[in-house]
Amino acid sequence: MQGILQGMRVVEGSAFVAIPLAGMTLAQMGADVIRFDRLEGGLDAHRWPVTAQGQSLFWAGMNKGKRSVAVDMKSPRGRELVTQIVTAPGKDAGLFLTNLRVRGWMDHPTLSQFRPDLIMVTLSGDRHGRPAVDYTVNPALGFPDATGPAGSTDPVAHVLPAWDCIAGNMAVTALLAAERHRLRTGEGQDVDLTLKDVAAAMLGHLGIIGEVAVNGVDRPKSGNALYGAYGQDFVCADGRRIMVIGLTDRQWRGLVKVTGSAQAMERIARQTGLDLAKEAARWEARAMITDALTPWFAARTLPDIAPLFEAQGLTWSEFRSFARAVQEDPDLQPGENPMFAHVDQPGIGRYPVPASPITFSGAQTPPPAAAPVLGAHTEEVLADVAGLPGHEIAQLFDAGIVAGPR
Amino acid sequence: MQGILQGMRVVEGSAFVAIPLAGMTLAQMGADVIRFDRLEGGLDAHRWPVTAQGQSLFWAGMNKGKRSVAVDMKSPRGRELVTQIVTAPGKDAGLFLTNLRVRGWMDHPTLSQFRPDLIMVTLSGDRHGRPAVDYTVNPALGFPDATGPAGSTDPVAHVLPAWDCIAGNMAVTALLAAERHRLRTGEGQDVDLTLKDVAAAMLGHLGIIGEVAVNGVDRPKSGNALYGAYGQDFVCADGRRIMVIGLTDRQWRGLVKVTGSAQAMERIARQTGLDLAKEAARWEARAMITDALTPWFAARTLPDIAPLFEAQGLTWSEFRSFARAVQEDPDLQPGENPMFAHVDQPGIGRYPVPASPITFSGAQTPPPAAAPVLGAHTEEVLADVAGLPGHEIAQLFDAGIVAGPR
Repeated sequence: MQGILQGMRVVEGSAFVAIPLAGMTLAQMGADVIRFDRLEGGLDAHRWPVTAQGQSLFWAGMNKGKRSVAVDMKSPRGRELVTQIVTAPGKDAGLFLTNLRVRGWMDHPTLSQFRPDLIMVTLSGDRHGRPAVDYTVNPALGFPDATGPAGSTDPVAHVLPAWDCIAGNMAVTALLAAERHRLRTGEGQDVDLTLKDVAAAMLGHLGIIGEVAVNGVDRPKSGNALYGAYGQDFVCADGRRIMVIGLTDRQWRGLVKVTGSAQAMERIARQTGLDLAKEAARWEARAMITDALTPWFAARTLPDIAPLFEAQGLTWSEFRSFARAVQEDPDLQPGENPMFAHVDQPGIGRYPVPASPITFSGAQTPPPAAAPVLGAHTEEVLADVAGLPGHEIAQLFDAGIVAGPR
Repeated sequence: MQGILQGMRVVEGSAFVAIPLAGMTLAQMGADVIRFDRLEGGLDAHRWPVTAQGQSLFWAGMNKGKRSVAVDMKSPRGRELVTQIVTAPGKDAGLFLTNLRVRGWMDHPTLSQFRPDLIMVTLSGDRHGRPAVDYTVNPALGFPDATGPAGSTDPVAHVLPAWDCIAGNMAVTALLAAERHRLRTGEGQDVDLTLKDVAAAMLGHLGIIGEVAVNGVDRPKSGNALYGAYGQDFVCADGRRIMVIGLTDRQWRGLVKVTGSAQAMERIARQTGLDLAKEAARWEARAMITDALTPWFAARTLPDIAPLFEAQGLTWSEFRSFARAVQEDPDLQPGENPMFAHVDQPGIGRYPVPASPITFSGAQTPPPAAAPVLGAHTEEVLADVAGLPGHEIAQLFDAGIVAGPR
């Protein structure tokens, strides 16, 4: 069996999170993904986290399984080479992902002259051509203002670049949808999306725009509580903190049962006149519910609680740091979770690396591969994809228009 | 022109965020997406936010442009109907998205007996069959521990259901990749992914697993600072707060230029021996940089600052609440941003609703459509998709096995 996208060739001109993630997602499903960069590496070549030697763990994570070409795009011949690689023939090629919005030589009107059925997916900041990153889109749309302890007025930004992760996956969707259309019609496509629009659309999808526009409500911070039903974090007797969910009827009944709090909940229902079988009632009474449950958690350690919650099939989790998750969670260990393997990353070393989280019954999930050293595939891509003869490739290296690995 | 996925038919058995978002994403690209639910509605029928009348704005947001079928799945005949709808003929049909892991009648081995080329994408909690939601996956992997003010020990959960949003988009990718494979081979596919694995993989992609495993670093909280370079929030003279980014060379030089802080930065470089042209040096010196810049922001209002930043092309944003974003941001206004339109949502009213953020040069972006009333399309789907004659459909309604809109 092969990867589900075996045979597809995608070229990527990118930096940072979203588009590198998009290309990597395709590579982890078996596509041949060629990332090209400036001779000195892209804008994200040194993006944190980095090792003590300055090697980017971020870059290694975002470029797994790709081929790397290093080319001087200030030189006309370098631009020509990128054009040749992007528009090279192949039924399952002519697919280009980018977040480097370059007018002229690298835009769709120009590139599609060399390959009319070119599919180009461009992610940009906002629809006015302004730059935007996760760190700016997120505050602009209101999430930090609604994050953190109830009553606080300080905005709290998320540390996961969530909008980038979503936009990168939407770029994959865009590419696959456009390629599906090309298979049927032969037509190429210039596809656009912006980080700001991706986030603004999600604000609508989640009902938050309606909450403002219809309800006139500006959602306040509510700490770690689950919004609109019951879900709360508690500190156990051993100081460990857990999140427990009472969103569905089943979850709620299970939580009440395990904590032996049926009488307390009846009391709250009587006092408030609320029917706690209803999500909204649990949300309204959440402070009283939490007060009633707190002593139960405070009297028990996490090792006491875990088996009770597991036996009942509750939806819950401990709060852990990144280090504890990486070191202790079986789902993050190679050998325990087949998604992970130890991979030797050149310049960095051997550590646990994830494959695609998607498994197909009729296709292989390629094992996780290292990210390439910058320029590792310059020579082979110029030969195999751009179709250049060996002496011409040698001249390009000699002239410093392209570079191999250092 | 039509939507890029025009002609594709997808059936969805779902609740909550990820899979409803996946189906909606396909619907907004032109696919015919049929969501089936219990007669009383799915587990998310009343998910918050809700209107004063109890109508779910969340449900409306996540189910835009779908067709809705209400069916009693406790009855054998109801299950048979769902099977017929999922496995109905059609070259571009036989596509099923679900997060309701039902063994037996609704699993891939059973359903594919009726349509061997069925593609079924199932999202579940974790790979052990345990339930998991965004609110539990997130603390398990460490993000809340790394979120919030530096020095604080209280974990802060994100309010965006980021893992669900990512997993939902990956389910779309999985479906399109499997359908691409089916077009070439005729083969169906049982596709699996779990919320926990999606999040665990991203922890690796972002370099965080490497940061722990290679560097031995458990990333501490750093407030709203951009990690590993320079980016910080500042309060202006009028009390408004902005985020400004100095990640790339260009952004950093622009920030220093606009704030006239070149001498201050030289002083910091001399004092610390750091080369602030390097990302890591800016991160190391961030407290000093912030101290040097703070008076500049404190002396100017946002209306003073905005034109200076825009003229320089800086990457920046104001912090706003959800309400201010919805009310004031031109990018969220129908008429200003073609992605938005005012839509009449039955039971709720008229408010701004987003279409897909992806635009294709050679295909239409369907205008945003309302979510269906539960059961609105039961009758037509039983006729058009399941192919039942009118008298049989009437009997099913009479017997209470299916229901139309109330």
